[in-house]
Order: sequence, then C-alpha cells, then structure tokens
Amino acid sequence: MSEEIKERLEGRVSYHDSVEEMLKRIRTDGLSSVFSRWEQQEKIRCKFCLQGLSCQLCTHGPCRINEKTGVEKGVCGIGPDAMAMRNLLMRNIMGAATYGHHAYEAFRTLKATGEGKTSFKITDVNKLKWMCEKVGIDTNQDINQLAIKLADFLDSEMKINPDRESVMVEAFAPKKRKPVWKELHIYPSGVEHEVQNSIASCLTNVDGSYVSLARKALRLGLSTIYTAQIGLEMVQDILFGTPMPHEVDVDMGIMDPDYVNIAFNGHQPWVAVATLQKARTEEYQEKARKAGAKGLRIVGSIETGQELLQRFDVDDVFVGLMGNWIALEPFLATGTVDALVMDENCSPPAIDQYAEKYQVSLISASTIIGVPGTGHEMPYYPAKADEMADSCIDIAIENFKKRHGKIEPMVPKSVKKAIAGFSTEAVLGAIGNDLNVLVDVIAKNQIKGIVALANCATLRNGPHDWNTVNLTKELIKKNILVVAGGCGNHGLEVAGLCNMDAVEEAGEGLKSVCKALGIPPVLSFGTCTDTGRMSMLVTALADHLDVDIPDLPIAVTAPEWMEQKATIDGIFAVAYGAYTHLSPVPFITGAPDLVKLVTEDVEGLTGGKVALGDDPVQVANDIEAHIIKKRKGMGLE
Amino acid sequence: MSEEIKERLEGRVSYHDSVEEMLKRIRTDGLSSVFSRWEQQEKIRCKFCLQGLSCQLCTHGPCRINEKTGVEKGVCGIGPDAMAMRNLLMRNIMGAATYGHHAYEAFRTLKATGEGKTSFKITDVNKLKWMCEKVGIDTNQDINQLAIKLADFLDSEMKINPDRESVMVEAFAPKKRKPVWKELHIYPSGVEHEVQNSIASCLTNVDGSYVSLARKALRLGLSTIYTAQIGLEMVQDILFGTPMPHEVDVDMGIMDPDYVNIAFNGHQPWVAVATLQKARTEEYQEKARKAGAKGLRIVGSIETGQELLQRFDVDDVFVGLMGNWIALEPFLATGTVDALVMDENCSPPAIDQYAEKYQVSLISASTIIGVPGTGHEMPYYPAKADEMADSCIDIAIENFKKRHGKIEPMVPKSVKKAIAGFSTEAVLGAIGNDLNVLVDVIAKNQIKGIVALANCATLRNGPHDWNTVNLTKELIKKNILVVAGGCGNHGLEVAGLCNMDAVEEAGEGLKSVCKALGIPPVLSFGTCTDTGRMSMLVTALADHLDVDIPDLPIAVTAPEWMEQKATIDGIFAVAYGAYTHLSPVPFITGAPDLVKLVTEDVEGLTGGKVALGDDPVQVANDIEAHIIKKRKGMGLE
Repeated sequence: MSEEIKERLEGRVSYHDSVEEMLKRIRTDGLSSVFSRWEQQEKIRCKFCLQGLSCQLCTHGPCRINEKTGVEKGVCGIGPDAMAMRNLLMRNIMGAATYGHHAYEAFRTLKATGEGKTSFKITDVNKLKWMCEKVGIDTNQDINQLAIKLADFLDSEMKINPDRESVMVEAFAPKKRKPVWKELHIYPSGVEHEVQNSIASCLTNVDGSYVSLARKALRLGLSTIYTAQIGLEMVQDILFGTPMPHEVDVDMGIMDPDYVNIAFNGHQPWVAVATLQKARTEEYQEKARKAGAKGLRIVGSIETGQELLQRFDVDDVFVGLMGNWIALEPFLATGTVDALVMDENCSPPAIDQYAEKYQVSLISASTIIGVPGTGHEMPYYPAKADEMADSCIDIAIENFKKRHGKIEPMVPKSVKKAIAGFSTEAVLGAIGNDLNVLVDVIAKNQIKGIVALANCATLRNGPHDWNTVNLTKELIKKNILVVAGGCGNHGLEVAGLCNMDAVEEAGEGLKSVCKALGIPPVLSFGTCTDTGRMSMLVTALADHLDVDIPDLPIAVTAPEWMEQKATIDGIFAVAYGAYTHLSPVPFITGAPDLVKLVTEDVEGLTGGKVALGDDPVQVANDIEAHIIKKRKGMGLE
Repeated sequence: MSEEIKERLEGRVSYHDSVEEMLKRIRTDGLSSVFSRWEQQEKIRCKFCLQGLSCQLCTHGPCRINEKTGVEKGVCGIGPDAMAMRNLLMRNIMGAATYGHHAYEAFRTLKATGEGKTSFKITDVNKLKWMCEKVGIDTNQDINQLAIKLADFLDSEMKINPDRESVMVEAFAPKKRKPVWKELHIYPSGVEHEVQNSIASCLTNVDGSYVSLARKALRLGLSTIYTAQIGLEMVQDILFGTPMPHEVDVDMGIMDPDYVNIAFNGHQPWVAVATLQKARTEEYQEKARKAGAKGLRIVGSIETGQELLQRFDVDDVFVGLMGNWIALEPFLATGTVDALVMDENCSPPAIDQYAEKYQVSLISASTIIGVPGTGHEMPYYPAKADEMADSCIDIAIENFKKRHGKIEPMVPKSVKKAIAGFSTEAVLGAIGNDLNVLVDVIAKNQIKGIVALANCATLRNGPHDWNTVNLTKELIKKNILVVAGGCGNHGLEVAGLCNMDAVEEAGEGLKSVCKALGIPPVLSFGTCTDTGRMSMLVTALADHLDVDIPDLPIAVTAPEWMEQKATIDGIFAVAYGAYTHLSPVPFITGAPDLVKLVTEDVEGLTGGKVALGDDPVQVANDIEAHIIKKRKGMGLE
C-alpha cells in the first residue's frame, strides 16, 4: 500500500468510524467478530489452498501439488493449472446458481403477482411493456397477462440448452460481442443448463484441462448475466419501480432504539417490500405503539436494504441503510434491532451470539437460509409474502418488549447522505436521453473514462472498505466516473462518496460534469446483482458508437471481493471484454499457465483480462493507463 | 483388515491379476499410474481436509478449524459440523447435477428419436407404455408421439419447484415413505431445483447449520433418484432394451490387437450404441479390413461398457467389458486400443500419457469432457449420434494404421464369464412374476437378506477391488443375496462372482435358491446410475408386503466409494431408509455432532443411517446383525 494511504490507517480495522466504535463494545462484551476470527485464522492458513493447489473432491484425495518435492499431479493425474481452475470454476458455479435462485424467486413472484396472488402490483408498466417488446412477447394484452407471460418466458430462458438459442442473450448482448462469443464457443445457454454442464465437468475425472474449464467459466459468466441477472433486475423494477436518483440516509446513526426496528438482510427484497407496505399504514404503527414503542421502522441491511434504497424514499418508517456485510455484527451490537429477516447471503453463521447477547430475533425468509439460532423459519412463497410480513412484524414487536429497556442501546452518531437510485434509465434521463451528451464529455476528456465497481468487502487486503474507498477516491480524482454496486457501493455510500459533497473530491473535468448534471462522482447503481444493470449502460454506449466493448475507455474493479457471486461477476466482465481488476488475488497463484491465461492471453480472445494489485494508488494508475490506451485507440486525446 | 484376508494380499495392489500384470509394463515404461500417484500423495495429505475442517470458499479463507489451539470457527463463524457438512453437501451437489446431466441427455435423445432425428428406435415399446401409464400420459397415441411426450414430461420433472409436486416421486417412491419424507421436510422437488437451492445454501454466509444442510442433502438424494436416475434408466431401456440376463465376457483378455478396437468409456451410451449398430454391418467391417485389420470391434469400458453389456450380446464385434475405472490405465497400456471415446466420468486427466505412449486416439463425445491430449472433440447432439459414430470409426481406423505393428501389444490372458443384464423385470421374470416366491425364500431363511452394492473403486481402504470382492464373498457365504451396480459391480464381474461358478461360494440356502432359479449369487444390475433401478426392486418388495423400507432385511454398501455420484447415492440410501455402509470414511471425522447425526440420530428420523468400517469381515458381520434384527422385527427367525 502507498505510504500516504498507509499513514491514514492509524491502527484502524475499518474505514468507518461507526464500525470502529461498535467494535469496542463487541470486544468489551467478549464476543468474537469477523475481525477477531480473521486474526485467528491468519495464523493457520494453508498455503496449498491459497495457491489453488489442494483438492478434496474424492476419496483418493485430499491431494496437494508440490512441484518442489516432485509431486506434480493429483492421484487422478490432474495438474496444477486444471486443479486451480476447477476450484475456481466451482466457486463460480456457486455464484451463478445463487443468482439463478434469486432470478427464480423473482420470476415466480412476478407470475404470482400477475395472477393476483400477491400484495404486490405492476409498478412500472412501461418497463413491463418494454421488456416484452425486447423479447418478442405481444404487448397487446392485459398487463397481468403480460406479467405472467414474461415470467414464464424468463424462467424458460434459464433452462435453454444448446438445442436452441437464448432470446435474452440475443436481445441484451452488445451487438459486436455476439460473433466473438460464437467464435470462442462461449455464447451461452441458460444459466441452469450452464450450471449443470459446468458441475458435471468439475466432477472427478471429467474435465482435467484448464483451458476447457476456463472456457466453461466464461460461458457461465455470460449466461449468469444475460439469463438470470438482467431479467431479475428488470422484474424487480417492474414490481417495485425502476430506480431513480434520490437522497437517502446511511450508516448506523439511522437507528433509534425506541422504535420497533426490523432489518432486512440479504439480496431478495420480496418480504421486505411487503413489510414496508404494511409498516407505512397507521394500523401497524399503532400496533407498535401499543407495545410501548414510538412506532415501527424498517431498516435496510446490505443488499436487500440497497434494493429498498434504490426504489423507496427514506422517511420516518424506512430509515435507510446500515452499511455493508462486515458492518452487520457491529450493527446488531447496537442493541436496537428487533428482527433480522434474512433471505440470502450475507447472513454469517456467527450472528447467533449477537442475537442472543443483544436480543435480536433471527428470521429466515427463504429455504436457503440456515443461520444457527434462527427461531423463525419461513420458506418463501410469493402468495405468502403478506402473511410473512405480518409474522415478521409480530415477531419484532414481541422482541421489542424483551429488548427495550433491557438491552442498553449504543448507537454511533454517524449518519451520511447518499444519492441512491441510479439505473441506465436514470443516467439517460440525466443526459436528456441523448447518449451523445455522454460521448461528448468523454471526447472532451472531462470524463476520462468509466469504471464499474462491483464487489463485497473483505479484510484480506487491508481494513474493511479501505481499498474500495481509497481506490474510488483516486479514480474520481483522475476524472474517472465510478458506477458502483454491491457491498463496495454501500461502503462508498457510508464513506460519503455518493453525495454531492463528494463532487469536490473529483478532478476538474468530472467535477464540472457532476455539477452540470447534478450527479455525484460515484453513481450508486445498487447491489452486486446490478452488475448486469451496469453492463446495460456500457452496452448502450458501445452500440450507440457502433464499437465493441474492448474498444471503450472503461474498466471494471472488484477491489474487495469476498465470495462466489463476486467471482462470477468478475468472470462475466472478462468475457464481456473488460479490463477487470480483482483484489484480493484469486487462489490460483500456484498455476502458472492459468495465471498467464487470465492475466494476458485471454485479452487476445475476449479483449478482457484480469488485472491484479492490492494498492489503491497503483491500481488507479493502472486503470488510468488502460483507459488512456483505449482513448487513443478511439482517436481521443 | 482381518488376518485371513490380509494374508491373501501378498504385496498386491489390485485384486485382479490382469491389472497386476499390466502394472509391470507401466512401471517398466516409466509412466505414472493411479497406484504410483496414490503413493506420492500419501506422504503429503492434509489432516484438516481429511476431517472436513478446511474451507476454501471465500477470500476470508482458507480457514481451518483446530479446536486444540482454540480456533473453533471460520472467519464467517462457521463451526466444524456445518463446515464438514457443507463440504459434503457440495460433493453431493456435484453428483446430483451430473446425474441430472445424464438424464438431460437421455431425455433429449428420446425426444429426438421420437421426432425421427436419430438412428435409434423405440426398442422396448411395452416399457414406454408402462412408463407413460405410471405418470399419467394417455397411451392411446402413436409410439413416437408417446416418446416425445414422455421425454418432455421427464425433463419438466427435473425442473419441478415447491409450487407443485413431482409426479415421478409420487409414482415411484415406496408408499409408506412418502408421509415420512413430508414430515421431515425432505419430500423432494426436481433435481435441478434442489441442486440450485442446495448450491445457493452452500454459498458463503447462507446456511451455517449442519442440521439444515444435512436435511438439504437428504432431499437432494431423493430428488436425484426419483427425478433423474429412474427416468433416465427407464429411457435407456426404452431406447436400447430392458436388461435381461445373458452371459458375457469380461477382463482384459478380451482384447485382440489385430482388430480396430474402439472402447467406450464413461456412463452415457448414446454414441456407443450408434457405433455398435454400425460396427455390426459388413460395410464397416470391410472398412476396417481394408486398413489391414481383422475387423472392427467395440469394447466396453467401465459404465458405458456396462450399459452395453446389460443389453447387448457379446460376440465377435462387441467383445465385452475391460473392468472398472482403476483398470483404465492398465487397459490402455495393452497397446490394443485405437480409440477411447469418453462421455462422462471416469476419464482421468492422466491418460494423456498413455494415449501418447501406446498410440490411442482420445475422443470426447460430450461437452463436459476435457481430458488433456484429446484430439477430437464432439459435443453431443442426438441427431448427430450417427455422424459421431462414423467419425469415431474413421479416427480408430486411422489410429490402427499408426498403432498396429508399431506398438508392441501385451494382453493379459484372463477372460471371465459373467451373467450381466439383471433388472427388476429380469428378477421378477426369474421368479415367475410372483414376489411371493422371493418373500418365501426370505421367510424360509434360504436368503437371509439382500444387500445392494453400488460404488466405485478406490485405493484408500486397501488394494483395488479388495474390499468390494472380499465383502461380497463374506455376504454370499452368509446367504445374503447381493445386487450390484457401478465400478464395484465390474470388479465383481472380473473377479468371477457374477457367474454360475460363484454359486459354489455361497452359503447353502442361497446356493439352493441360485441353483433353482439359475442365477448367480451376485446379480449384476448395471452401473452406479442403476441405484434407482435397484431401489425399484426393493420398493416393489416393500409395497408388496405393505411395510416400510426400514422394516426390510436389506442393507446398502458402498465398500469402495470414490467420487461424488457415489456420495449422493449413499445419501439417497439413508433417506430411503436403508442401513448404508460406507467405506472409506467420509471427510467428516472432525465434526462430532455431524458424525453422531449420520451414524445414529438419523435412524430415528428416516430409519436409515450410515455405518462405517473398512474390514470386509467385520462389515459383513455388522450387516448380517442388522439384517437379523430386521428379520426379527418382521417375525422371521
């Protein structure tokens, strides 16, 4: 890390004061945290695993490769490159299937809504029609019928196999990319098919070629974005509204212990929205008041929170977002949360001790959740969302009676403003629906380029959100516009980089554009699931200019990726044709041919590649150099 | 291992003389083998991985749990039981998805055949009608239409989600099991849904409860058998004929170097059958003779070979089965193989060195295969099976010209007879379609009980096939009938336990039944994919007696399981309600609560449980004790 940034550290473990403050309480109370468990594990890391040179698949293993001692292959004969790539592909499969699961829930929710079985409604009718037109569904039908047809269509797209081509890929992929993907045999089928095909390839004694495995990963990445992510985000827009910019509150200071507080944590906003609808009625506020509370509040936690944040105004009922996943334990330690409703990652198994200590009711709102200590399990059925919302409120009110006055609250003061709610439509709106305006400011070098930041938060490469925030600061200083999604985005929101004050931290060119358009230098595009949404903006730009993705002055960064959905987003970016910065370094360093493939050779194939680096200043310089090269390629100064 | 069995070892690494003989050549020729690489890895095993206490999912890892040094949780907070169970569930997911992939290929092959696009035909029309009746498809239709409808139906069953119930489960599950599974929340949806749901659960920070993860594994096991395996095996019967007992040849002595020899290796028989059809015509034999060969021969390798063996007579064109997967390297070293056509596991990555040394053309006949050194890649499309068969023959003939007279052949003399081709229908046929005959010989204690053996072959618990063969010998001695599938079954075939001579090794009661019915004491039921088929026989027995599965004097054993399809078969067996012996011990020994759950507590839930043990004599005694207990429960002596 650069000296300058290192100096700012001063012994911190998180960029955020609120997290630092809460950690004192956590330590005093004798609980473990991500931070303390990280320190413990640091002492007993397996070097083979870190390099991708360990395999535990079959009973002939666990195998390790150690070329120094002459052990060059596993028992089956797999070499270091294929072993590391297979491990990596398995991680990607996990991410792809999880996005697939989210999409499955979205599509069945849309269908049930069209059938009149839910308390949701078709909020963005125009988007529903637009989607139907894009994919060839006759829009001359009743709105609810359209919703049902679109839901069935999108679900079937995830199941497409090589016997027919995906309509979603055809409709949403950049036009110059399609022949490239066909040539490389990575033009994707549906995500469910690609997941199955990839898993069957990873079985012991099936695919032992790192090149073949890498090709499957690229195809899987494309199928994830085009047949799961884009569809599911558009469906969430149809159901709950397309995000439009508006000011919101973030950080832990949003909490008030005197309210019944229900936090929604995960990625899938169904029950959260259903509960918010109810919480905004006098009937339910009254219920909470009867229990001695000032009222009932909904709090956004990580991505589910961000999905709310993108679409709903913050007010006295929906109070904002607490931060990202590493802030979850500190958040629970505030002693202000009555119910944590979990629907997907990140719901760490460790929070049971927090639930007990600070009197939080843990509620699972999905079949996939299995956090120890969860007292309430509700598998999600769209038609039951309303009933589930009622249960969540009842459980939270009961919890309030046990918590309030019994658990000492401790709420950090910090509240930050952020502009949330960017989307392709919102950006186009800001530029008067004329992409030439964007092209023009890029051509004039007011905006040097665009970087999409999508990822998690991790302690591997420094304190919590340290790399994410510092890299972003460096980029905007260089007049590079940042569009952000995922836990990294929440980190930036809490760090104050998504509000209008941050404009002052941008370089002169970017600053002038931000002021002219009334936008911050970091556009909050939502969650990690919005990777597809972010790509839609870039695709629009490429198609508008009639160029291919690798020609554009853009890059992707995941400066603190942690889990398996981040890796599939990263793999997508490489197949999409983007320079893709990843930190920490993936577990493939023991595989020299694979490292060369993903950091060098793949550029000659897809035009994208993986770039490494854990120092924000150096990474920003590298990204800038790449963007300048691409600008030159397009004949720009 | 018991002294008596140990004494027989005499320094062997395989039960089979042919393998021992070929290993001498392999060592002389300086090639590595499963055997030599196993020895290398034995020196550098990771003890954490062996116990299930290592996790490499996210960048906060790799984490290890070491309670002795106070490290009780991963960074996310996951404990030892959930970590080990999650690792195990991920392995099960791999097996389930691979069976799903096989089923997908089967169903699209049936559909394409109904549409007249393949060179296959509906061989077992009665079975097609029977299946349609079982699942509610109107059989008053054209045969090809029925095939199309059944294919579409079976494919849709794999995609069933909790919004509706599976017809396949309803049609094929034992009637007394269904309420048990519903009560336990393990009544399954389609395998593709359960795979997605399970993977999303295994993502970092989603399901950290070993109980919840174990429940998902049980449900996944049931969905695999009922919505993938049974359907795919029935479809293969419909296409290629329902297995009926007939005598075949096995072991490496079946090879003749003067022929063009094409071996089919894997599990999916599409291209193998298409090639066999051609090879049996004079036109193709003439083609081979023109290249200087005596003719063209088809050789069965592992499960694809067994699929052929179950349904086709052995003659001068189809010469039999070479053995199981650990015999593959020795088989290639005979210098007699012109093409190895691979469709699924086990196609070990190490065979590239054999292909080079002994002039074998490696051909991939599936998108999932990626063996290094594969010179010919053909993704499988049912309509192209014929064309693919032509290519395989052409490639093999070209290879013959390079191999014959240039590579010194070395063929072990051993050829064994086996009776292959058992199926539920075949067994019913042998007892005059009257289950009371079977009930009667069990009641009279001529047959004490039935053990289903389904698994791989491994070196972890002793020499190749050592445990499988010795355990089986012990069981039949105790008058326990063995029905076998998978690589273990091939091991038994090659060891001579599936022929009529083996009747002499059985106890008196079993011997008399075998003689009366003209069956061997080990019934070759096919491949690991026939686990579902084996369960159908047991289900028929349970339903006939109106008892539940755990009441029956039966057990399951996987005495040498190696990979991930074996683990899902094992998990199915536990959910099915069977005493399920597994050797080697799964990687969960560091998880005490989990071990207790699967070896003890689960018996109170499903009636099944995992039994451990690596000594064939002890395991046979344990199984016998279990069977006697169940006999007593049924009021039998």
